[in-house]
Amino acid sequence: MAESARRGRGGGGAARRAERSAVSFETAKYIERNIPNFEILTEEALQIIETNAEIVLEEVGVNFLDNPAAIQRWRDAGAEIDGERVRIPRGLARKLCATAPSQYTQHARNPARNVVVGGNNLVLAPVYGPPFVRDAVGGRRYATMDDFNKFVKLGYMSKWLHHSGGTVCEPTDIPVNKRHLDMLYAHMTLSDKPFMGSVTEPSRAQDSVDMCKILFGEEFVRDNTVMTSLININSPMTFDDVMMGALEVYAQNNQACIISPFIVGGAMAPVSVAGTLTQVLAETLAGIAYSQLIRPGAPVIMGAFVTSIDMNSGAPTFGTPEAAHITYGAGQLARRLGLPYRSAGSFCGSKLPDAQAAYETANSLNMGLLSGVNFMLHACGWLEGGLVSSFEKFVMDADQLGTLHHLARGVEVDENAQAMGAIREVGPGGHYLGCEHTQNNFKSAFWKSDLLDYKPFETWEDEGARDTQALATLRVEKMLADYQAPALDPAIREKLDAFVAQKKSAEPDSFM
Amino acid sequence: MAESARRGRGGGGAARRAERSAVSFETAKYIERNIPNFEILTEEALQIIETNAEIVLEEVGVNFLDNPAAIQRWRDAGAEIDGERVRIPRGLARKLCATAPSQYTQHARNPARNVVVGGNNLVLAPVYGPPFVRDAVGGRRYATMDDFNKFVKLGYMSKWLHHSGGTVCEPTDIPVNKRHLDMLYAHMTLSDKPFMGSVTEPSRAQDSVDMCKILFGEEFVRDNTVMTSLININSPMTFDDVMMGALEVYAQNNQACIISPFIVGGAMAPVSVAGTLTQVLAETLAGIAYSQLIRPGAPVIMGAFVTSIDMNSGAPTFGTPEAAHITYGAGQLARRLGLPYRSAGSFCGSKLPDAQAAYETANSLNMGLLSGVNFMLHACGWLEGGLVSSFEKFVMDADQLGTLHHLARGVEVDENAQAMGAIREVGPGGHYLGCEHTQNNFKSAFWKSDLLDYKPFETWEDEGARDTQALATLRVEKMLADYQAPALDPAIREKLDAFVAQKKSAEPDSFM
Repeated sequence: MAESARRGRGGGGAARRAERSAVSFETAKYIERNIPNFEILTEEALQIIETNAEIVLEEVGVNFLDNPAAIQRWRDAGAEIDGERVRIPRGLARKLCATAPSQYTQHARNPARNVVVGGNNLVLAPVYGPPFVRDAVGGRRYATMDDFNKFVKLGYMSKWLHHSGGTVCEPTDIPVNKRHLDMLYAHMTLSDKPFMGSVTEPSRAQDSVDMCKILFGEEFVRDNTVMTSLININSPMTFDDVMMGALEVYAQNNQACIISPFIVGGAMAPVSVAGTLTQVLAETLAGIAYSQLIRPGAPVIMGAFVTSIDMNSGAPTFGTPEAAHITYGAGQLARRLGLPYRSAGSFCGSKLPDAQAAYETANSLNMGLLSGVNFMLHACGWLEGGLVSSFEKFVMDADQLGTLHHLARGVEVDENAQAMGAIREVGPGGHYLGCEHTQNNFKSAFWKSDLLDYKPFETWEDEGARDTQALATLRVEKMLADYQAPALDPAIREKLDAFVAQKKSAEPDSFM
Repeated sequence: MAESARRGRGGGGAARRAERSAVSFETAKYIERNIPNFEILTEEALQIIETNAEIVLEEVGVNFLDNPAAIQRWRDAGAEIDGERVRIPRGLARKLCATAPSQYTQHARNPARNVVVGGNNLVLAPVYGPPFVRDAVGGRRYATMDDFNKFVKLGYMSKWLHHSGGTVCEPTDIPVNKRHLDMLYAHMTLSDKPFMGSVTEPSRAQDSVDMCKILFGEEFVRDNTVMTSLININSPMTFDDVMMGALEVYAQNNQACIISPFIVGGAMAPVSVAGTLTQVLAETLAGIAYSQLIRPGAPVIMGAFVTSIDMNSGAPTFGTPEAAHITYGAGQLARRLGLPYRSAGSFCGSKLPDAQAAYETANSLNMGLLSGVNFMLHACGWLEGGLVSSFEKFVMDADQLGTLHHLARGVEVDENAQAMGAIREVGPGGHYLGCEHTQNNFKSAFWKSDLLDYKPFETWEDEGARDTQALATLRVEKMLADYQAPALDPAIREKLDAFVAQKKSAEPDSFM
């Protein structure tokens, strides 16, 4: 935990006083890879998949449901229309995608926390979407707004997490038609990291934009990207009006969207890797092309959320080799399109933050780094196939994200790193612990977990023989006790309060 | 568990009868990678490290302790000798290494279980060396021969494990000077997978060779490699007479050795990755060159056992990014030498088979596959920094090794894999579960754990809400209950019995 000077946007004496008294928590810069990507597909395989995706778009096409304006846009762009079916001539979707930027900056209200999405970068954001939460004390239960706020606080305090995320859990105690307001308010006030907007209705996307205008200033939002939001495709090949309506709002406002198939392999896509990649590419080409029909140059991320399936139970499975194949391959396809790429995460099927959860998560996090992912949603806290946000697993995974940062640094070979002086000094049979090179370098040489157990056996036993989950329970408690909110101009907070109150009073509660 | 016809070596009617009644357990073929290796070092970095390693050998040199014959061999080969210090002129070690084969076959007594070490292959062997064992029922305790036998049985029954290993735990209830006989006897009789020989005294290496002559036939052992044994270098830069004596026995008999630095970074090597790689290369060049001075063409593996260190506690740390950097880099160095490569494993520092253990292990297993490791010792069962062989973790890790097999298959792009018929058939909004392509391919499409939990939440809860360790405890019990020994010619068994009895009676017990 380190205090650091920060400059918020907006101002006034009260804001400055609030800033001076606030503690800031250290956050690592987003990962800038200094290592190559792992390229699993040959040039021939890539060409086959790219050709097949174009054939799928032209001959099978995609559906844009309940969205006459979208159909008209596609017609005007040269697609062949048959009811809600849009068949896209070969090359058209790829050509439309060319106006999407290869990278963009998402601004945070604390400029030190801005992230650049694309290129060699990797931005890490927490779990998104679970209706349940779990912790060792309270067990598994429906998520509430109180849980949501806690996850935002943990994310704010997590050193290796660059992004506050979006629906870190579903606050089921708040009406469906109003919870987006509370969620955005939490991200805006409890954290100063970048965040995501609502996508559950076009009007809620507009509310998200409007709240950002309060937080960042109207002019700033007009000129800059301040949200990255998640637009799922209904695989196979279907774009519904709700998600597309939200995409339209965001693209019109120059706000970024992840356009992402949501695929359980064997159910929503072919049971083969090459077939799934073909569908992923066709779907993302169509979705991203559509974003560029709304506004050429609108920032987008090519997404691929893909799991395998246990054909006995029908359960989705995570951290599996086939998901890794797809993630590696989709990364190559995204780079050839020149687009930022979203995939991977702290995926697991386990009900508990146990060894299964950790194997599956580590498999996924590692391949996420090596596949060239630029934006990793669900990077910590995911449990039970995405049904549960786990407090313990949130801090466990967030700690492991440090390994990705250090791996991505690559290998230095400057004179200091070569350490020839140390090798000469120590010689055969000697010991490096005391030598000058070790003393000069040990502090930054090795990544060190802030959570895991490295103690001698006897100490560990005396302290209660705690497993990782037990250590994580303590960590969660301590972090929430230590939490201090980042400073925020009271005038801005008042305007946000007023906006939320006005919106909430404007329509009756709905839990549908 | 599948019955399969097998042909053992040696024969006779009794052998054939024993074979017909025996059950065999399915073992996957060693991994043949159809994916690229991950190359973290640039050509420039590789050249710097290779040049520096030659400088170290020439200017600093290595120590061969208490071994006048080795010193003489080095003198004859052109090294500069100063007492026990051997300084090797630039290029000499590399030139000597050129006679070592780029790959070799290690024969098993069941020829279907032979392994080819080198090239694109990856052979997986279990944990080696821990003095303690742990399971959920009995806790942590000194290992016994009974534990040893159980681990050999589990290894024999583990589908994704190709090799029976060596000292799967230290049977501390057997005298130190006799336990190698019981360990080899266990590998030879309880399993039919390939195994490792003793390295704790040259005479015990000779016993290992002699027992192999009984098992395989004298002529067969003369002409073939039937053991791969572990020769550790005393890093930094020291080769002791015990290990070198064992190496001499094995090399003379054309049996394979892993020649491997054992490095806790910052203590036995520089605290930097490039410095450690330089030392690893210098040490293995010297050790492998020495094996070729004993017998040109003797099969060897270039090893790199490297961990980082927690500079606060001095504890070695596992599954860390710096260990991954070194493992990736050493793989590149081994390939440039044209030698098989040993590294990685189920490494972890955790005291329990919990989430920490699984994160660290998965990190290490994944980088082991991608770094081009050819022989992975410790691929399952390692716990607590190598102090403990864990029964539960053995089966947990062994299950995860299946992910490496499937990852290594790479991505098929033949017509069936392209699945264009399925994409056309299902179309936008459809479902793939019922389509013909899915029905034809689902059985082999996805890797499936035999251990982890994929059940619906309610079922899992009704069954006791078990974590991975609890599932593994049951798995261990079931496997040991189901175990059946592979058939062995009774005449061979009698000769092994007689050899072990004669050797045991020939000298007094020693527990030193």
